[in-house]
Amino acid sequence: MQFFSNHRSIRKYSSEPVSDEILMQALEAGICASNTGNMQVYSMIVTKDETLRKQLWEVHFKQNMVLQAPVHITFCADVNRFGKWCRARKAEPAYENFLWFCNAAIDASLASQNVALAAEALGLGICYLGTAVYNAARIVEILKLPKGVIPVTALVLGYPDEQPQRTGRLPLEAVVHNETYNDYSNEKIDRLYADIEASEQTRQLLETNQKETLAQVFTDKRYTKRDNEAFSTAYFEALKQQGFL
Amino acid sequence: MQFFSNHRSIRKYSSEPVSDEILMQALEAGICASNTGNMQVYSMIVTKDETLRKQLWEVHFKQNMVLQAPVHITFCADVNRFGKWCRARKAEPAYENFLWFCNAAIDASLASQNVALAAEALGLGICYLGTAVYNAARIVEILKLPKGVIPVTALVLGYPDEQPQRTGRLPLEAVVHNETYNDYSNEKIDRLYADIEASEQTRQLLETNQKETLAQVFTDKRYTKRDNEAFSTAYFEALKQQGFL
Repeated sequence: MQFFSNHRSIRKYSSEPVSDEILMQALEAGICASNTGNMQVYSMIVTKDETLRKQLWEVHFKQNMVLQAPVHITFCADVNRFGKWCRARKAEPAYENFLWFCNAAIDASLASQNVALAAEALGLGICYLGTAVYNAARIVEILKLPKGVIPVTALVLGYPDEQPQRTGRLPLEAVVHNETYNDYSNEKIDRLYADIEASEQTRQLLETNQKETLAQVFTDKRYTKRDNEAFSTAYFEALKQQGFL
Repeated sequence: MQFFSNHRSIRKYSSEPVSDEILMQALEAGICASNTGNMQVYSMIVTKDETLRKQLWEVHFKQNMVLQAPVHITFCADVNRFGKWCRARKAEPAYENFLWFCNAAIDASLASQNVALAAEALGLGICYLGTAVYNAARIVEILKLPKGVIPVTALVLGYPDEQPQRTGRLPLEAVVHNETYNDYSNEKIDRLYADIEASEQTRQLLETNQKETLAQVFTDKRYTKRDNEAFSTAYFEALKQQGFL
């Protein structure tokens, strides 16, 4: 189980390249994950070229690690390949819709997690880029994604140049429900968030951001209503453009 | 890497129960996965009660394994807990939207894959139920999910009562692209699907389904246009009802 608890997101990378052999092993682990109907309606775009990685870095809000890490993998929902196969076999595909975006996005995510865990087991560091959904339309351009293909998530990977502490999590009881959903009373919320709110890291965040509560750091600084609504609209539009809606 | 390639979906389970200790280890692995902003906007509903599992079995198209397996876990996108915390801390959450459904659905999927892999490492068998998105509204009722919570995927787990062969995959080059998307020519499609089309399993499927090509088994039998459109609409409506659209 240490295999899982050893995970840390790595945000500083050495310049050591990743060999094709190591990379292929991690990608092979990816396709071992469960997937809907064994149809493999996802694609993994492996980008190493510096010019392309710089374009991706801009899209991913210019986070340093995106430039540093030698390998960038974009996981896409992909019904294009399956559709082409169907049409070449006298079958009429009907997978450009919301259901299959969801199926394919889940499958792409499961594959990405296998790649992430395998990469870590092989001595690499990884960092997820949730920002793949934020500027999806631009990624579509950079990676030349045809209709039926849309970015879902991305990973950078390379050899770590830092050894960060593990990021804390809420107690397990915060996210696990017995039998049915056990909704949260204010008292339970207080108890579940007590440790994280009392941490030194939180104290520093409140000071840096000049906020009264940690929740306000999220709502007023990191993930604001305005951004959330703009990126919702943008991803929705990208899904339309790529044929899923 | 064998850890990943050993995966098989298990569809027959023994009656041996799963101890709380084993289950907790698998769930702990789940929360080690990366997640957006460390906000943990997902929930895992663990259902063991027979009456509830029977209701879930009906929703998941009465697949035998759903009744057999002693543990049923539904992974949900969940902005309810985070929203409640914000409101209790003088912060105004704005996460009931499409962006946060996507973020949370991806995070729930990553957590589920950790649980699946950990369960397998602990000697359990698992099977994903992609059908969690098909009848989401009914699962919302059964599991009493409040607004801000929607099923994304589900797993059953227990001790295997079968040792199935590994399900084949397309060659790695079918899903991996170098630098940017390399679209598929008809020749490439022929080559990538050649092995699976030539397999004994395909021959049997064509005979059973009375179809000319394997692709037609998917488009005409397993995942038809009519079903795909109906379930797209249904999940979209469920997302609206739960406040994400």
